[in-house]
Amino acid sequence: MAKPKKTPRPKAQTPKGFADYFGKDVTERAAMLQMIAGGDHRYGFDPLESSAVETVEALGKFLPDVDRPNEGVFAWQEEDGDWLALRYDMTAPLARVYAQHRNDLPNPYRRYAMGPVWRNEKPGPGRFRQFYQCDADTVGTASMAADAEICAMLSDTLEAVGIPRGDYVIRINNRKVLNGVMEVAGLAGDDKDAERGIVLRAIDKLDRLGPDGVRALLGEGRKDESGDFTKGAGLGDAQADVVMGFMQAKRDTGADTVAQLRGLVDGSDIGTKGVDELEEIAALLNAGGYGPDRIEIDPSVVRGLGYYTGPVYEAELTFEVTVEKGRPRNFGAVAGGGRYDELGERCTGQEVPATGVSIGVDRLLAALRATGRTGDAAQGPVVVTVMDRDRMADYQAMVAELREAGIRAEVYLGNPKNFGNQLKYADKRGSPVAIIEGGDEKERGVVQIKDLVLGAKIAETATHEEWKDRPSQFEVPREEMLAKVLEILGK
Amino acid sequence: MAKPKKTPRPKAQTPKGFADYFGKDVTERAAMLQMIAGGDHRYGFDPLESSAVETVEALGKFLPDVDRPNEGVFAWQEEDGDWLALRYDMTAPLARVYAQHRNDLPNPYRRYAMGPVWRNEKPGPGRFRQFYQCDADTVGTASMAADAEICAMLSDTLEAVGIPRGDYVIRINNRKVLNGVMEVAGLAGDDKDAERGIVLRAIDKLDRLGPDGVRALLGEGRKDESGDFTKGAGLGDAQADVVMGFMQAKRDTGADTVAQLRGLVDGSDIGTKGVDELEEIAALLNAGGYGPDRIEIDPSVVRGLGYYTGPVYEAELTFEVTVEKGRPRNFGAVAGGGRYDELGERCTGQEVPATGVSIGVDRLLAALRATGRTGDAAQGPVVVTVMDRDRMADYQAMVAELREAGIRAEVYLGNPKNFGNQLKYADKRGSPVAIIEGGDEKERGVVQIKDLVLGAKIAETATHEEWKDRPSQFEVPREEMLAKVLEILGK
Repeated sequence: MAKPKKTPRPKAQTPKGFADYFGKDVTERAAMLQMIAGGDHRYGFDPLESSAVETVEALGKFLPDVDRPNEGVFAWQEEDGDWLALRYDMTAPLARVYAQHRNDLPNPYRRYAMGPVWRNEKPGPGRFRQFYQCDADTVGTASMAADAEICAMLSDTLEAVGIPRGDYVIRINNRKVLNGVMEVAGLAGDDKDAERGIVLRAIDKLDRLGPDGVRALLGEGRKDESGDFTKGAGLGDAQADVVMGFMQAKRDTGADTVAQLRGLVDGSDIGTKGVDELEEIAALLNAGGYGPDRIEIDPSVVRGLGYYTGPVYEAELTFEVTVEKGRPRNFGAVAGGGRYDELGERCTGQEVPATGVSIGVDRLLAALRATGRTGDAAQGPVVVTVMDRDRMADYQAMVAELREAGIRAEVYLGNPKNFGNQLKYADKRGSPVAIIEGGDEKERGVVQIKDLVLGAKIAETATHEEWKDRPSQFEVPREEMLAKVLEILGK
Repeated sequence: MAKPKKTPRPKAQTPKGFADYFGKDVTERAAMLQMIAGGDHRYGFDPLESSAVETVEALGKFLPDVDRPNEGVFAWQEEDGDWLALRYDMTAPLARVYAQHRNDLPNPYRRYAMGPVWRNEKPGPGRFRQFYQCDADTVGTASMAADAEICAMLSDTLEAVGIPRGDYVIRINNRKVLNGVMEVAGLAGDDKDAERGIVLRAIDKLDRLGPDGVRALLGEGRKDESGDFTKGAGLGDAQADVVMGFMQAKRDTGADTVAQLRGLVDGSDIGTKGVDELEEIAALLNAGGYGPDRIEIDPSVVRGLGYYTGPVYEAELTFEVTVEKGRPRNFGAVAGGGRYDELGERCTGQEVPATGVSIGVDRLLAALRATGRTGDAAQGPVVVTVMDRDRMADYQAMVAELREAGIRAEVYLGNPKNFGNQLKYADKRGSPVAIIEGGDEKERGVVQIKDLVLGAKIAETATHEEWKDRPSQFEVPREEMLAKVLEILGK
């Protein structure tokens, strides 16, 4: 590459809202994704890797500014005039792939997909414009067994990646029940759009505001601690009672909750259909052994505002961890999804029933890390130090021997002049062991082996006298190097 | 999601030059990448996952058309005026990351990176605008031990993914030797740029044109079979002799080749330095047991035109496979790289020595597939058929039992009315086993188990009478289902 002339040196910066990941941040995520894929595979789901780039049309972004249709997505125009964009989720590409390949795909089609998605949003602290999604969907069947199986798979997956039973719960609701409740409360019809929106948002805030706060939002409105006023839905008492009854319909057993809901939507066909669906899913899950200790019916689950048409589900972590400054943190929902029978319609012109879940990979990983459940930390390499620059071949032969035995190992490749730098390097790499073979050792046919983990432990606690004894450094004959390293590594 | 009105249905198409990957195309690549990562890890390399998006500045694309700097890359303009682009390789992001984080990174810094890269090029058959790259680089050391270790790692990697020793060779050359040859041939100096370009391209064509063709291109020029004339470098005989001697300097042993090259560049400082480097690498590799059966010095390796400043290396597969229409296909180079000491300079303002290799993931995978070396094909799921729609819970319990035992299994979720469709579905999924439990079986406490692999074999060879005996279908008590399936799967 010709060196550019007269050009100012480029700023070495990740673009705003993007991040670089190093070392075990990469391997831990990869290991988690692999475990998730293994579970999806066992359930009969097939992997799909669609391209990161889609036509803007396929993404369904028909935005007012036709010259620059990149609101929310990263988009650019091709020379032939087409607009392309980076995918913003895994669902729009699935709809496109299914429409394009449906004659070659098995029907129903179960697929999983994992990879980065991109959002053209204002970046903020902890808000990234590229992040991982990991989805599993079943396309082409209206059977509630598809929804039930995805909930069961999600339960298995959470346990497989390291969330013990009891530390999570998968909560299921049904949009049709919600629609039935709206009907009973007199909030059906296109002219009630605004009220329904306020009611849905109010339900979504139950956790935070409590029943009284929600009730206020269903009526005239609510003044928060700061004195700000949020306008309410303006429901009468009888209407608000129906909605409050729905939100609080959860009982100790699934059967009791279903009975409660059935009463609430009495007279609404769509509501009754929704309750039937919930009942069917619960029965299927119970038959598979997935009881309320793992999966429960919870009418307070809403999952966003549009999009879903039947069952909705989400997985919540139920434990708290104490983060910096002693504040407890609840990780909340780490996965969610539901049935979206209208999505496929956009591409195929006919209704294609589908249901699926998306796992929040980064949030789940953060929860595992916060509880020390990411498995053994990636270990740094054994570092063979360079005492004599002309004997690099000897040192290479040592690492070759160690690697042959499956041990992560490397020769120090920086300037070997300052031995202290070599040990500092080993420290930075998190090396468990350093090997030293100077001219004197070479002559006597031995090597020095420093146990750096033990050494660090001794350095923390030992007196100066103990330290001088250097019990963490061993001299062994050269031919016993491998055995000694294996012993130190506990292999 | 609100259904768009009055909008024409979007074409369900992957954008031109992009592709979707299904099933084992995804899992085989993932498995290969994981094996490569395992080898890189053992050599002490750390993973790096940088963002797919970079500033156009960091990618080093300073192109004439400032309003649309997307020649070769996919680029777009941010609202604040910055241009962003998708990375086109893994090297430019490494240079940016190293410049940005160098105070926090170990020095030298060994890293590997794998993932998609994007090229805004005219798509063609087999030419994609998104493809995988898998790189390993060592930044911050000028030691030849870094180059040697990457060649050794490449050799280990090829064997780990399934290319047996003898079916590949890693060939090493050195740009400094080439520069020395140019000097000796009187082709040094800025005014000889055009001639040097022609000479380099001619050397690169040795495989295809043979020595006579290359010789013609070094002189006046060459007329090909079609009658087209390619202008040559116009070298005199003595000059051309030097270049031809260089290209054909390979001898049976590395030591002999080095001696031959040393003679050819006699009098050129840079050439002699290059030969010293080659000698040092060969000595290090020999000490590690990597002899000429795996890694050899080959002066005909050029690796592109600019960019590299010292050792260059490439891995070539040496076997041919017969593809469709009986034509043999040579897979050629599947990996290549070298030392590029000037790259880091762009970002840090000082010379940062670096050397690295890039593996052509898709080409390597194609070679493994062509020789049937991708390991066992991903197996389809056991399909539990649905004979009685109301007993879905029974069928779910069956798959739960199978999965618990680690068996990939699923319930048929399509319309169960037509049993033939269920078996066709199982066939499409590549299912090894189908389970059948109708009302009659349920009553008698048994299930039917169809061995679909055996069944297909019998169907190919059996007479009608034999077929009727249905020896590939077994009736077993329900509680023996799991044991029988395990037996059929050979687990």
